[in-house]
Amino acid sequence: MRAVDIIIRKREKQELNKEEIDFFIDGVTKGSIPDYQISAWAMAVLLNGMTPQETTYLTLAMAHSGDILDLSSIAPLVVDKHSSGGVGDKTTLVVAPIVASYGLPVGKMSGRGLGFSGGTLDKMESIPGYRVDLSEAEFMSQLKEIGIVLTGQSGDLAPADGILYGLRDVTGTVPSTPLIASSIMSKKIAAGAQAIVLDVKLGYGAFMKDLESARELAQLMVQIGELSGRKVRALLSDMNQPLGEAVGNAIELKEAIETLHDGGPADFREHCFTVSAHMLLLGKKAETLDAARAMAEQAVREGKAWEKFVQLVKAQDGDLSFIENPEKLPSGSIREEIKADNDGYLSMVNAQAVGEAAVLLGAGREKKGAPIDLGVGILVYHKVGAAVQRGDVLFTIIANDATRLNAAKEKLKESVGISEEKCAALPLFYGVL
Amino acid sequence: MRAVDIIIRKREKQELNKEEIDFFIDGVTKGSIPDYQISAWAMAVLLNGMTPQETTYLTLAMAHSGDILDLSSIAPLVVDKHSSGGVGDKTTLVVAPIVASYGLPVGKMSGRGLGFSGGTLDKMESIPGYRVDLSEAEFMSQLKEIGIVLTGQSGDLAPADGILYGLRDVTGTVPSTPLIASSIMSKKIAAGAQAIVLDVKLGYGAFMKDLESARELAQLMVQIGELSGRKVRALLSDMNQPLGEAVGNAIELKEAIETLHDGGPADFREHCFTVSAHMLLLGKKAETLDAARAMAEQAVREGKAWEKFVQLVKAQDGDLSFIENPEKLPSGSIREEIKADNDGYLSMVNAQAVGEAAVLLGAGREKKGAPIDLGVGILVYHKVGAAVQRGDVLFTIIANDATRLNAAKEKLKESVGISEEKCAALPLFYGVL
Repeated sequence: MRAVDIIIRKREKQELNKEEIDFFIDGVTKGSIPDYQISAWAMAVLLNGMTPQETTYLTLAMAHSGDILDLSSIAPLVVDKHSSGGVGDKTTLVVAPIVASYGLPVGKMSGRGLGFSGGTLDKMESIPGYRVDLSEAEFMSQLKEIGIVLTGQSGDLAPADGILYGLRDVTGTVPSTPLIASSIMSKKIAAGAQAIVLDVKLGYGAFMKDLESARELAQLMVQIGELSGRKVRALLSDMNQPLGEAVGNAIELKEAIETLHDGGPADFREHCFTVSAHMLLLGKKAETLDAARAMAEQAVREGKAWEKFVQLVKAQDGDLSFIENPEKLPSGSIREEIKADNDGYLSMVNAQAVGEAAVLLGAGREKKGAPIDLGVGILVYHKVGAAVQRGDVLFTIIANDATRLNAAKEKLKESVGISEEKCAALPLFYGVL
Repeated sequence: MRAVDIIIRKREKQELNKEEIDFFIDGVTKGSIPDYQISAWAMAVLLNGMTPQETTYLTLAMAHSGDILDLSSIAPLVVDKHSSGGVGDKTTLVVAPIVASYGLPVGKMSGRGLGFSGGTLDKMESIPGYRVDLSEAEFMSQLKEIGIVLTGQSGDLAPADGILYGLRDVTGTVPSTPLIASSIMSKKIAAGAQAIVLDVKLGYGAFMKDLESARELAQLMVQIGELSGRKVRALLSDMNQPLGEAVGNAIELKEAIETLHDGGPADFREHCFTVSAHMLLLGKKAETLDAARAMAEQAVREGKAWEKFVQLVKAQDGDLSFIENPEKLPSGSIREEIKADNDGYLSMVNAQAVGEAAVLLGAGREKKGAPIDLGVGILVYHKVGAAVQRGDVLFTIIANDATRLNAAKEKLKESVGISEEKCAALPLFYGVL
């Protein structure tokens, strides 16, 4: 078998079989297939597509390119969750403790923020001492002991995906539904998940800008789940405007802590309860979605979720005094409010622009590995559809540098639309697959 | 400007502008754009196409990636010729002396054979001593002195094309009409041609298998000529069956020598006179195609073309005794005839199969740089449409090794179709653009 023949078959819009995909991904992993063949193949896949069956072979080949965590000794069914990324999305920080508080283990490997999308690891690192570099052995033992882990991805999981993603990033081959779906699913499968709730976001602040492409991605991942024997539920959720009020790192952690104390913004609470309910249902902790939803609310109301979060932070060496007294968390020295210029109804709070403003403040990074400022961010007080009056505070900017603050302010002004006519509120969810 | 953005624009089916193409080809030449970006771009070009204007920018950028020969000191108009390659195509060996005998300089840089297609350099190297490695200075002075050169391509001409072709070969991105057209035309323009006759072959033994794709390639090269200020004439010629009788190296040289002595097979003579006529017309040595055609025949009849060929071989250090006594040229020790199994009409003499049989004998190479046997080959006695009787000799195989001979024999049998019903002869040409 030759790599060039596999490229040619994909160029000719043919369906690759398991042997061909296994050969190709094996060559990617071992380095026997050079970069220039991988990138030509990726472009052919992007332009000519892949069937769900091909995408499943690709997913499994990438998942098996390194270690596969075997979580069967921990629980018969471990549920994982994946968000396609967004602005103000601190859902994992609330959902994981809720679900784990019912004895359904959640062992999650998260990423860092890149561009205008925030990352769970950065938010958790606002807690001094909190470790995100657990070894595989530490991951397994903590998951067994307290049923919850939030750490970074281990280097040995799905290494072929890492190589392929690195090349896609510099060869214009990122926006391919089969390549995105197999990248996400291969990491989840390698991390040992038997059931996965996917939070596929769409809108200004999401990778997928419209419902159609988000549904296509979600549908494909559900099909990969079916073809690979994993239970998958996909939620299509809104990311036109930020989720919750807080956008940043420490301020998102604070909002998650408030929510775990049965407070927090209404849209974010609703989002967390819905995702938790699907996870509890998939993990067989409830008979119906309604019952699962009630359990999720109860875990927060009765403080069990908070207890689980404290266990998590303690287990990963975080300083508990910072979550018990969140005012100790890093916070920028300059605050400035941005007010509405007109009376009217909010027609837009563009999540991408808000995310970019946060990057300008230093809360996010343009390039992998760049340092970030954990204490800066933006509070977003109103949702699309709300009536506002001239002078109402729309945002508070929390900054450490006046120049950065001004740049963020300009960007934030771009994010807002105020209409004289009434605007409908945006839905939180567009559907479940 | 970033290479990845240029890839993305081509992925999105956008038309690249001159600045983008110049930037990309400059990066290819200097090595600042890595292989994996070049190959992803090539796949996007193959699948999404290029306009004639884009292809012209690409052609000129590649031509200018190295030295451009300035032949204006030699003649106001230098005519070049290019064949897209075939089986039994020794046309250059006859056409170049014919045209040069009228004082129209022909300075040609040819290639070696690869796969089932033969190469002019290999055929000329059947003459002991003949040099195909002239320096640029030698090329220029010989062209000025005797008006004819047949040598290999100088390394400094269109180096970007060499890099791009090397990558295309291993990434499944060869069969792209814009990439083929720009590769051919960039080398011709770098070699100083102001007028070019293109012999675009089609059929079993050609790269282009059908009239439609050959016409598309020819049309695009004519458009590149118009947009770059070069005169281009493109002939669409048959390569379903071999051209002439001889397929090999020394035996093709012998057939060319016979033709220069006013002999040779009818189809090959006709092909040479037609190509020569177009070159003479383009080079303004005749007023009409008919007049140019008559001049071509006359040059052969009166021995002027032969004289010019002798000058060429002498100038490039070839041993003249081998062309004056062609029986001295290398010739295999084993001969075997292949006869017709049935009475009927020849419906096929598949040029690709004949070419592959010649490779099996050792006359050609599967990989660049492999050694070849100059003395072996195949004589093909009949053309499609001819009436044959059981026992008529269809081929003579000339070999140096019995095992190779048997392999070639099997392959040759596959090449032949004999029908009970009359078959039309194949045209030599399908059109002129």
